[in-house]
Amino acid sequence: MSEAVREQVRARIRDVPDFPQPGVLFKDITPLLADHAAFSAAVTALVAMLPQDVDVVAAVEARGFVLGAPVALAVGAGFVPVRKAGKLPGDTSRVAYALEYGVAEVEVTSDAFHAGQRVVVLDDVLATGGTAAATCELVEQSGASVVGVRFLLELSFLAGRSRLAGRDVESLLVV
Amino acid sequence: MSEAVREQVRARIRDVPDFPQPGVLFKDITPLLADHAAFSAAVTALVAMLPQDVDVVAAVEARGFVLGAPVALAVGAGFVPVRKAGKLPGDTSRVAYALEYGVAEVEVTSDAFHAGQRVVVLDDVLATGGTAAATCELVEQSGASVVGVRFLLELSFLAGRSRLAGRDVESLLVV
Repeated sequence: MSEAVREQVRARIRDVPDFPQPGVLFKDITPLLADHAAFSAAVTALVAMLPQDVDVVAAVEARGFVLGAPVALAVGAGFVPVRKAGKLPGDTSRVAYALEYGVAEVEVTSDAFHAGQRVVVLDDVLATGGTAAATCELVEQSGASVVGVRFLLELSFLAGRSRLAGRDVESLLVV
Repeated sequence: MSEAVREQVRARIRDVPDFPQPGVLFKDITPLLADHAAFSAAVTALVAMLPQDVDVVAAVEARGFVLGAPVALAVGAGFVPVRKAGKLPGDTSRVAYALEYGVAEVEVTSDAFHAGQRVVVLDDVLATGGTAAATCELVEQSGASVVGVRFLLELSFLAGRSRLAGRDVESLLVV
């Protein structure tokens, strides 16, 4: 897509220092979402970045849902919400991943993915890559394939791409 | 919309007993989201239920995001994520509301709404109505107007509609 679209999106992402903790520069996408034209352009750009024949878009709670649901609808795919552990009812599958201090888990319902499906994993920001890597593992445990990992914004200094080595990873914006 | 669409959506909502706690029958919408045709039909139906000239769709974390973002994009509105307290960066506004035991808060960024805007509040399920009522209050504190409150599914036995008295409230499905 054009550099003009990237600039339109970039201009609506707000830097908030020291959130959620001191020393972290948080990328706030609420100005982007509030601007219909810019939000719509971002979704259109993400749709254009998807591989062909995607069966499922799996997006990570909670900002990932805001981007993933419209992308899934636009490409004719189903949508799977990937959640933090404990929020989904019934039979679920979980994968744990390391945080700087401690561990976290991502979870989907047990019937979220099926063998042979082509799945795109989508989130707003690629930071350390732990959540996305764990989500890819969840997809593959069920016999489905991860055919792409897509982000609105990649924080390249955190090297999250290294945890997704060998995968088809693209981000609309890279800082 | 037609009864056929309602039936298509209803058939994809799964009852899960005793979640998140004993005695609660949880309405799981993940089967709906996984089915592209049914999810798309649900969004189209919600779009058709909106008033004219909506400036902003405000949706409640996290399942509300999945429905609210596509609806906002479809009607040319901006999207505001309404979050549980503590998840948004920068300057925010909060409103507390009563739960069965204790209180909770909903939060938006301080620049989420502007005086004169026409806002629709949207969530997946209308249960006791506390979250939706608090969200309406957040909208109105900024001088914007709530022109509609919309739900995918209304649990009428919980009488949440009574907390939204005097508002334009509609649900795609009522059980």
